[in-house]
Amino acid sequence: MADILHRIAVKVTDINLVYNALATLEGLRGWWTEDTSGNPGQVDGTIAFRFAAGGFDMRVKTLSTELVQWEVIAGEPQWIGSVISWQLKQADDYIVVLFKHEGWKEVTEFMHHCSTKWAIFLMSLKDLLENGKGAPNPHDVKIDEIN
Amino acid sequence: MADILHRIAVKVTDINLVYNALATLEGLRGWWTEDTSGNPGQVDGTIAFRFAAGGFDMRVKTLSTELVQWEVIAGEPQWIGSVISWQLKQADDYIVVLFKHEGWKEVTEFMHHCSTKWAIFLMSLKDLLENGKGAPNPHDVKIDEIN
Repeated sequence: MADILHRIAVKVTDINLVYNALATLEGLRGWWTEDTSGNPGQVDGTIAFRFAAGGFDMRVKTLSTELVQWEVIAGEPQWIGSVISWQLKQADDYIVVLFKHEGWKEVTEFMHHCSTKWAIFLMSLKDLLENGKGAPNPHDVKIDEIN
Repeated sequence: MADILHRIAVKVTDINLVYNALATLEGLRGWWTEDTSGNPGQVDGTIAFRFAAGGFDMRVKTLSTELVQWEVIAGEPQWIGSVISWQLKQADDYIVVLFKHEGWKEVTEFMHHCSTKWAIFLMSLKDLLENGKGAPNPHDVKIDEIN
């Protein structure tokens, strides 16, 4: 088992702004992928994230302003069963986001790719909240020949 | 023990261009920190990377166009003894960079921060090689209230 870990801090004072970017379709479409549908604002709700090359379905496991957790239930085989966690907390003028993508069965080259790409999307989330504009798929920053 | 993993691909055809960005002072100053000194082009050479808040000394363990490895010998306590590896390989029109920062003794919040920050510096390396200009410290993209 191996994990992807990241940390950003968003310069906003209201934790609900960050929470809403994770728990509403409008929020998720603004930083991860424009093709997002489902019920991100409901425990046990399903969210469908789609990209040119495929996508993921997630089940909402935990939903509070301190912790949002999704379990991957369909899509890319290496992702199935893994858990994505967003821990939110205030620190001075920032909301800190501690991110984990846990439960990878093995360390693959694709896992390396996903680690870097998560950092890119976390910066997209930060840009959305601080400057009003993220870079969700298909406008996302490309990191390698995969995407 | 826990690891930080990343992957980028740089759109250049000559692997030596990527290698030189890791094995020369001019290269390292162009994407990681302008305050870099020492002997990056020599096995057992020491490299001193300095930032506003401190820095790291590394010993060059492995040095070839397929693999560059550094061991952290001084600086931030959480980094001491950890190993940073850069595996390079050609894939079509790209040079793929597989990055590992291995040997963290425990998973800390600072490790999460470093994971995201490494992604930022890898993108700086990519920009340097593809567009002629990276964003090394002190011009680096800030990700949180730490830096």
